[in-house]
Amino acid sequence: MSTAAAAAEAGQQHATAEAAAAAVPPAAVAAAAAPPFDFAACIPRFLHWVDFCNSGAAAAAADEFLLLTVGGSAVGFLKPSFAERLLQFPDVFRRDGGGLALHPSLATQQQRTAAVAGVLEVLRGEGLIEGWRNELYPAVRAFHDEPAFLIERAAAPHFGIKAYGVHINGYVTLPDGSKELWVARRSRSKPTWPGKLDHIAAGGQPHGLGCMENVVKECEEEASIPTELAARATAVGAVSYTSLQPAGLKRDVLYCFDLELPADFAPRPQDGEVEEFMRMPAWRVAEIMTTSDEYKENCNLVIIDFFFRHGYLTPDMPGYLELLRGLKSGDMS
Amino acid sequence: MSTAAAAAEAGQQHATAEAAAAAVPPAAVAAAAAPPFDFAACIPRFLHWVDFCNSGAAAAAADEFLLLTVGGSAVGFLKPSFAERLLQFPDVFRRDGGGLALHPSLATQQQRTAAVAGVLEVLRGEGLIEGWRNELYPAVRAFHDEPAFLIERAAAPHFGIKAYGVHINGYVTLPDGSKELWVARRSRSKPTWPGKLDHIAAGGQPHGLGCMENVVKECEEEASIPTELAARATAVGAVSYTSLQPAGLKRDVLYCFDLELPADFAPRPQDGEVEEFMRMPAWRVAEIMTTSDEYKENCNLVIIDFFFRHGYLTPDMPGYLELLRGLKSGDMS
Repeated sequence: MSTAAAAAEAGQQHATAEAAAAAVPPAAVAAAAAPPFDFAACIPRFLHWVDFCNSGAAAAAADEFLLLTVGGSAVGFLKPSFAERLLQFPDVFRRDGGGLALHPSLATQQQRTAAVAGVLEVLRGEGLIEGWRNELYPAVRAFHDEPAFLIERAAAPHFGIKAYGVHINGYVTLPDGSKELWVARRSRSKPTWPGKLDHIAAGGQPHGLGCMENVVKECEEEASIPTELAARATAVGAVSYTSLQPAGLKRDVLYCFDLELPADFAPRPQDGEVEEFMRMPAWRVAEIMTTSDEYKENCNLVIIDFFFRHGYLTPDMPGYLELLRGLKSGDMS
Repeated sequence: MSTAAAAAEAGQQHATAEAAAAAVPPAAVAAAAAPPFDFAACIPRFLHWVDFCNSGAAAAAADEFLLLTVGGSAVGFLKPSFAERLLQFPDVFRRDGGGLALHPSLATQQQRTAAVAGVLEVLRGEGLIEGWRNELYPAVRAFHDEPAFLIERAAAPHFGIKAYGVHINGYVTLPDGSKELWVARRSRSKPTWPGKLDHIAAGGQPHGLGCMENVVKECEEEASIPTELAARATAVGAVSYTSLQPAGLKRDVLYCFDLELPADFAPRPQDGEVEEFMRMPAWRVAEIMTTSDEYKENCNLVIIDFFFRHGYLTPDMPGYLELLRGLKSGDMS
């Protein structure tokens, strides 16, 4: 059996850069092939993904990290060993209660950003911070606060800086009302999560860009979705989690967007981040999430949120409220 | 200007039992009349409604209520004065740590239900519990738990029993993609919230009925929506809150449903609970919520959830995450 035939049998439709439009069969065929699928049975595994993404919640609750404050406002969480290293830059960091504070002589956002960047250059040289992105994240207590300072994205987990992203559910509604999701397979040469399944488009929220502008940008860069089509994306909420990473605490808020696409549109890889796009019935996506670890982990939460909002999960299913609550386990601010 | 003309000018469409279909003008007219509306400016007032519905959160957090446990599982919160009254029934209630427990000799759900009902009869006779509904709520720690006992709905706030409900957003999508909501005005002779605005249908979740069955039942009883149409309602999540009432602590979880209705369908009052139905652009509903207290208070939260899921609120609006978090302030279990 060919790969295409195997994929079709599994309820998938493929679109590569070479053969995008041709790979999309009539929607009704896929819908007719959908077997009865038990979403209730997925809930324990969905709860597992919530727990997986919140691996840092207990550590944060148990005060295993030190607060980093700026002018009395908490903007980060530091591993004690990393905090000790930062204290070796006494012009920039100093002890403050049980935690660390940015030196009060650094009075403006610009001064703080420059001082922290200087420290990061040293730590980067030592190999302590890897995977430089040349992208600045704001250090904030809450999303709409004026940033205390800006910091290189690769350093954010070391400092436990809150990170915001936009994640887009690209989907198609079939004539029978059922839905199919576009699924990306990440490039196997990508340094982060190579070969994992992902949304049609997603990205970190850099400083100085509106969320909707970012959605349009990511849709274009990752999936060749034209601006006028991407602009139809609808803000639908957010999920949040606190995960423990080797570097420190990753405190993420992902803004969720739904982008309903025409049945005859197929995304195409563009910037080398995506290897291929596949279109799958919602039940097939749930099945993959339930029976494998193929998805980039945090994507599971955004797709579970999609399942909640589109009626695939219902109150009569045991675990419904626990799962719904779990999607917002992180610091939603 | 006639009432109908005034309503039309305010972006409303009316449907009474007498003149339902005739009162629905072409959808495009209402859409064209929609002025630009600033949903971001509504957020402070929306946060007010979250706070309003969570008037009991601080009291619960400050341990101003006593726990009621059954077999070690917490199912209720009691005002100290009410707890003292219950202790005058020593065969049914007894002290347990800092709170009260149902007497352990009451071993089954049936025994507990009967014993509590006996106490309630006495308290009802004393006028301590009013507004008898003849509807049984389960006393549970979480929705899918086996009920510790069943209790008359009117007594639920006195015992701080968790209460679950189904709330249905009835709406129409216009050809330009904008949405209009069906709004009910509660009968002015109703004992609870007379004359207030409400959803197209909503109701408490009684014991022994599935949520979707309850949705269909409430849609039929309150708005004359035929079963086959009501069955299209989609589960889309839940909101929760903890409010302080004269009787005690009201700990509610409202399951939210979206019901997209055909443009030519008009609900009709049936059981005397609703005085009239009006169809209004989403912006007009937001305006009413923002400038008045016309809505039954907890409905605001369900409609705000609708605004989140349908893209009326966006991450670039200050207060977005605080409001989103606030919708699930209660015990989501």
